[in-house]
Amino acid sequence: MKRVVQKFGGTSVGSLERIQATADIVERSVQEGIETAVVVSAMSGETNRLIGLANALCDDPNGREMDQLVSTGEQVSAALLAIELQSRGFAAHSYTGAQAGLRTDNSFSRARIVGVECGRLLERITLGEVPILTGFQGVSGQGDVTTLGRGGSDTSAVALAIALKADVCDIFTDVDGVYTTDPRIVPSASKIKRISYEEMLEMASQGAKVLQNRSVELAMRYQMPIHLRSSFMDVPGTMVMNEDDIMERAAITGVAYNRDEAKITIKGIPDHPGIASAVFGPIAEAGLNVDVIVQNVSEVGTTDITFTVPRSDFRQALKIVRGICKDMQARDVMGDDHVAKVSIIGVGMRSHSGVASKMFSTLAGKGINIQMITTSEIKITVVVEEQHVDEAVRALHTAFGLDAEGVAAA
Amino acid sequence: MKRVVQKFGGTSVGSLERIQATADIVERSVQEGIETAVVVSAMSGETNRLIGLANALCDDPNGREMDQLVSTGEQVSAALLAIELQSRGFAAHSYTGAQAGLRTDNSFSRARIVGVECGRLLERITLGEVPILTGFQGVSGQGDVTTLGRGGSDTSAVALAIALKADVCDIFTDVDGVYTTDPRIVPSASKIKRISYEEMLEMASQGAKVLQNRSVELAMRYQMPIHLRSSFMDVPGTMVMNEDDIMERAAITGVAYNRDEAKITIKGIPDHPGIASAVFGPIAEAGLNVDVIVQNVSEVGTTDITFTVPRSDFRQALKIVRGICKDMQARDVMGDDHVAKVSIIGVGMRSHSGVASKMFSTLAGKGINIQMITTSEIKITVVVEEQHVDEAVRALHTAFGLDAEGVAAA
Repeated sequence: MKRVVQKFGGTSVGSLERIQATADIVERSVQEGIETAVVVSAMSGETNRLIGLANALCDDPNGREMDQLVSTGEQVSAALLAIELQSRGFAAHSYTGAQAGLRTDNSFSRARIVGVECGRLLERITLGEVPILTGFQGVSGQGDVTTLGRGGSDTSAVALAIALKADVCDIFTDVDGVYTTDPRIVPSASKIKRISYEEMLEMASQGAKVLQNRSVELAMRYQMPIHLRSSFMDVPGTMVMNEDDIMERAAITGVAYNRDEAKITIKGIPDHPGIASAVFGPIAEAGLNVDVIVQNVSEVGTTDITFTVPRSDFRQALKIVRGICKDMQARDVMGDDHVAKVSIIGVGMRSHSGVASKMFSTLAGKGINIQMITTSEIKITVVVEEQHVDEAVRALHTAFGLDAEGVAAA
Repeated sequence: MKRVVQKFGGTSVGSLERIQATADIVERSVQEGIETAVVVSAMSGETNRLIGLANALCDDPNGREMDQLVSTGEQVSAALLAIELQSRGFAAHSYTGAQAGLRTDNSFSRARIVGVECGRLLERITLGEVPILTGFQGVSGQGDVTTLGRGGSDTSAVALAIALKADVCDIFTDVDGVYTTDPRIVPSASKIKRISYEEMLEMASQGAKVLQNRSVELAMRYQMPIHLRSSFMDVPGTMVMNEDDIMERAAITGVAYNRDEAKITIKGIPDHPGIASAVFGPIAEAGLNVDVIVQNVSEVGTTDITFTVPRSDFRQALKIVRGICKDMQARDVMGDDHVAKVSIIGVGMRSHSGVASKMFSTLAGKGINIQMITTSEIKITVVVEEQHVDEAVRALHTAFGLDAEGVAAA
């Protein structure tokens, strides 16, 4: 018998009407003879409402109490969905993270799952019940309610799917899948039918935020397929799955971009061991995220280092770096917060040669200057002036044969 | 060291301002060196809001899911109060019924407490923490959330006080105590300083609804004093306590009344064994509550039975009784839904003689006809025409020396 975990986000349970529409989806699954478990987020807006109440009392409320507070959001939506399904004649019950045995560590507001003791749910699902798990939350070893951090419901769903040995974890959302690139920039972007976990992680880290990365990493570790699909249309979405199970493979799978970038360059810093940690240590201590780093030898005895940070961290990072470089007698520090990243992603590039040179020549053909380059096994990222992002994405999408016109005409 | 459990109802946590005012009360207690644990209800209106959501989906929602749903109300108010107390520098944490070890049976929406395993709370309170328990809820042996029924937070508070071996259970409410009678009828009614559990139960069952009866019964069984007091004024309220600890005792403690009464009389029903159960069996089966019952022999071989029911049950009870009496060939059935009960209550009447005759002569002196009389150890109840209620209450309050003028003038 097929078994599936279906996850619904806040908009899918955001009103009584949406809860009924969500129940329609669950009902269809059960009617098809599929053993179905459900994971829900809080009704949209509810988590923020609760946080607002707490912040009105205290600027920095205690983590344990915040988790006790906000976890009620999913408890409400899960119970309401159970009530709706019961009114349709289905055996359905809601379970909190604690009741479902979703055990976490003790890190309030960003807990990590340490195990799922889902004996009770497993028993109920085999008896024909539809268990409905509150997403986003678990229970610590001390019996305290913990939450997994924003978007944690995706991770709850994948963890439950693994524990229940489900065939697939369906994640319903307001988009109908992952696209080859942002359709707002490239109208001919097409939906990707199958994407590997690694590619999905790279797409997400490049701004295609449809799935929380933790959930993809977890799914990858346990080889749990994720079906990312629309809660508004009953059409196939994108399967996120093991690379080896994807038969045909183009050189690249998608083009991603991120405008939220700023660049800092240190010129003529004395080149000796430990220089990188001297620069990046204090930045990390300040809690700032460094993304792309490029280091080049320039003149003899000195080197140039360039790196990017999220634009919101730019001013603070620049200030820190200026302080460091004064101490270290670097020649100059320059900043530019009008840059962006463009990446091509695909496991296929491992077996297709010439992908990098094709990318560079495509951008050159459009007169777009590449400021930085960084590569991984399945991704090539360039940093360009922000104003060139749209043109770069369009050109690369076409050059790598991702435009859907041909497909649509076929 | 003195230890107290403080219970706050929905209006005391009904807004952020009220939560802060409640925190003031808790803070005062802690500052006085008292080990303090707190029990809270849901923010006023919240439980009804959640029930409304469920009823919009389903006319008769499942009990387990309803308890999962509505129990979130107290979880929110408890966490918010904990956050407010923390912001003032106190160690305070909220605990759900499950976390606090408040174990119940499996009767959703009207669960009974089977035990409180409060080891964790006991440890925390001795370490100086202020534990805040979600009222109204517990956990079943299966790990399901249960609720104790409306007003169950009073019972939670008393149960916690017993388990923590507190010196007293403070119940904060919007009245400042129990009065000798309803001050709306008798402006000179005075606050009762000390009242026995038995008297409190009788007062409550006669319409003085300030404490849930279950909480009083529980307190009586374990001899836990309840201090019923105002959350708006820091003045002593009414102590509900063991009769033996109340030193001076008047003949009666209070005068109670209930307008919500209707009377049904069966005349000339054949007088043979089993007649009462033949009449009252079907009424009980219909779920109707019979209160006062009086039976008199009338003519030879027949008897008259009169009883009262809540006014809302009158029509249905009358219909049932008419059916029975037709079968049993009773002479007549009469109904009157314009009657009311007036009671005098006091453990002192056991040792004071002439209390009953004083009551009857007082009413006779006002020309008030007594339709029915029923007595218990500590209560005498009469049924009178509804229009005479105010006058009867006033006359009895004066006759038994309860008017406060003398006290106020002293």
